[in-house]
Amino acid sequence: MRETTAYVAVDSDTPLTLHTIHRRDLRPDDVAVDVTFCGVCHSDLHDIHRPGNKPLVAGHEFVGTVAAIGAEVTRFQVGDAVAVGNIVDSCGTCTMCLAGQENYCEQFPTLTYGGRDRVDGTPTQGGYASEYIANEKFVYSLPDTLDPAGVAPLMCAGITVWEPLVRWNTGPGKTVGIVGLGGLGHLAVKFAHALGAHVVLFTTSEAKAAGARALGADEVIVSKDAAAMSAQANRFDLIIDTASAPHDLTPYIRALALDGTLCALGALGSMQFDPMALLIGRKSLASAGSGGTVGTQAMLDFCSERGIIADVEVLPARDVNLALERLERNDVRFRFALDMKQM
Amino acid sequence: MRETTAYVAVDSDTPLTLHTIHRRDLRPDDVAVDVTFCGVCHSDLHDIHRPGNKPLVAGHEFVGTVAAIGAEVTRFQVGDAVAVGNIVDSCGTCTMCLAGQENYCEQFPTLTYGGRDRVDGTPTQGGYASEYIANEKFVYSLPDTLDPAGVAPLMCAGITVWEPLVRWNTGPGKTVGIVGLGGLGHLAVKFAHALGAHVVLFTTSEAKAAGARALGADEVIVSKDAAAMSAQANRFDLIIDTASAPHDLTPYIRALALDGTLCALGALGSMQFDPMALLIGRKSLASAGSGGTVGTQAMLDFCSERGIIADVEVLPARDVNLALERLERNDVRFRFALDMKQM
Repeated sequence: MRETTAYVAVDSDTPLTLHTIHRRDLRPDDVAVDVTFCGVCHSDLHDIHRPGNKPLVAGHEFVGTVAAIGAEVTRFQVGDAVAVGNIVDSCGTCTMCLAGQENYCEQFPTLTYGGRDRVDGTPTQGGYASEYIANEKFVYSLPDTLDPAGVAPLMCAGITVWEPLVRWNTGPGKTVGIVGLGGLGHLAVKFAHALGAHVVLFTTSEAKAAGARALGADEVIVSKDAAAMSAQANRFDLIIDTASAPHDLTPYIRALALDGTLCALGALGSMQFDPMALLIGRKSLASAGSGGTVGTQAMLDFCSERGIIADVEVLPARDVNLALERLERNDVRFRFALDMKQM
Repeated sequence: MRETTAYVAVDSDTPLTLHTIHRRDLRPDDVAVDVTFCGVCHSDLHDIHRPGNKPLVAGHEFVGTVAAIGAEVTRFQVGDAVAVGNIVDSCGTCTMCLAGQENYCEQFPTLTYGGRDRVDGTPTQGGYASEYIANEKFVYSLPDTLDPAGVAPLMCAGITVWEPLVRWNTGPGKTVGIVGLGGLGHLAVKFAHALGAHVVLFTTSEAKAAGARALGADEVIVSKDAAAMSAQANRFDLIIDTASAPHDLTPYIRALALDGTLCALGALGSMQFDPMALLIGRKSLASAGSGGTVGTQAMLDFCSERGIIADVEVLPARDVNLALERLERNDVRFRFALDMKQM
C-alpha cells in the first residue's frame, strides 16, 4: 500500500481534516498522480454533507504529474502532466463503453470518489489528496499550454457541458442558450462561443451581464423578466440549463425553435414542464451527465488549441473548508481550484 | 352561402343528428370538396363530449372530389380527387409556417373543425358532411392508386406518426419501437417498416402480436412483462409512444440507446418519468402533433409509391353514432372510415 495525505470528511457535519490515507499498490496499468490542483465541485459539497459513505475524500477534477507507472503502462511516463475527471473505470464491454461513453456504462462507471473499485471492492477516495492512483485509460494528457489550475474544472464541469454542446451540433449559424453562469454555465458560454454559435445567457441576476459578455455571450436575458422570456419564443436550437435549483422548464422549452432541444443538466430530482410546450414545435427535453474518454480528450484538444480554461480562484488546499463554505453560499466566481501543494 | 348536410353534435351528450348547415361562398383560393370518406378520430369523440363549442361538426381526415373552385385556384380542377387533414389555414408568415410546419403556427393553425376562420371569424365545421370548403393550400391531391377510404386516416393519424419517424431518421440500420397498435400505432408500424427500420411493437395485449407482425413489426414486446421490458435497455434509436392513457414513460426511456429519443404523442396531460433515466445515455423526450403541408405531401407521395393505406372498417355515414360508440369502447380494428355517400 502507498501512503498519502488527504483532506477527509470523517462525518457529514464537521470540517474536513488532514489525514494519512492508503492507496493501492500500482497495478500493471495504473498511474500514480502527484496532485497539483483540484477543483471544488457542487457534488463534493453534496457528498460530504450526505449521511453515510464516510470517511470520504472528495475531489474529482484534478491535474498533476505522473509520479510512478505500472509495468504495462504505455501512454504515460514519470513526469508527464496529466488530468483526471470524475470517472476512473467502467466495465469496458457494454455498448456505452464501446462507444467511448463510459459515463453511461451499463454496469455503472466507477466514480473517482464515493465509488467502489472494480478489482478489490474498496471505496474510491478522491483528489483532495497528495496522490491519486488511476488506471491509465482514465488519465488524460494535460495540455502544456494551459494554466493547470484552470484545467482542473474542465475535467468535470467542462466535459459535462462540452458533450451536450457537441452532440446537439453547436456551431456557426446556431443559436444556443445557456441557463446559469456558475461553474458549468461559464464554461458552456466559453465553449459555445468558441464553437461559433450565437450565445445567449439566461440569468436571474442582471449583475452578471457584463461578466457573461466578457466570457463570450452575445446577449443576456434576465429570466425573471416574463416579457423578455416571451420574446424568445421559437428561437433557440439548443438550450443548456445548468441551474440546479428546481424551476419550471416551460419558458425555456417555449424558447426553443422547431426541433430544438433543452438539455437540463441540473434538474435531477424532477422536471416540471407543460407537455404541450414540447408538442408545439416538436421539441425535445434531454439530460446528460459527465463525459466519456473520447469526448474528454476531444474537449482537452479543443481547449488546448483555443486557449480555453475555467475561470478559477485558487486557494491553498489548507483552506478547503473555507472553499466549501463559500461555495455553499454561492460566493465564488465560477470555480475554486485548490493548490494541493499548500496543505 | 352554400348549403350542405352534416352530422351535428348539438350538445355534448346526445347522438349526432343530420342537419342542413351553411358553408361560406367560395373565396378566390377556395376549393369545394364533395366528401366521400371521413375517418373517425379519437379527437372527434373528445370534442363531441367536451362541454361548450356546440353545435359542432367533427371530422378532420377526409377525402373527396373537387366540386367547385374559386377564381384564382391553380392547383385543382373540378373532378380532382383530393384529401384534407386537420388544419385548413395558418398565419403563413411565422417561422413555423415558412418551414412548412403550419401545424406549429405561432398564431395557432386554424383547425378543420372547432377552429375559427381567419377571414370571417366563424367557427369551422368538419368533414362529417357532404361538402367542405377549404383554401387550396391545405388541400392535397389524393393518390389515385390507393383506396380512398384507407387514405382518409392518413390525413390525421398518418401524418402524426409520419413526421416524427422522418424527423428522427427512421430508416435502414435503425431500431424503432412503436407503443400501442391503434389508429396511430398501426400506421407507425407500417411506415417504420416501409422506411426500412427494424420495428418492435410494444403492446399491453399479447393478442395483438400476430396482427402487428402482419403489419410489418419484426418483434412484439408485451409491455406488462417487466423482465421483457428490462431486456430492452439501451436498444432503441427511437420510440414513438401512441398510447393515450397516462403511463410511466421511464421503461421506454430506459429502452432507448445512447442519444435515443422517445416521442410521446398521446401523453398530453402530464408526462411521468424519472429524469435520471434521461440522463443515463443522454436521451431525449419529445412530443409532436399533426403535420405541415410539406410533410403531408411527402407522406402521401411515399404512400402512393409504396401502396400504404390505413386499415379501415368502412361504415355508412348514417352509422356515425355506432362508430363513435364502438371507438369509445375500443371496438375498432385500427380506424373507422365513414362512407359519406351513405347518409
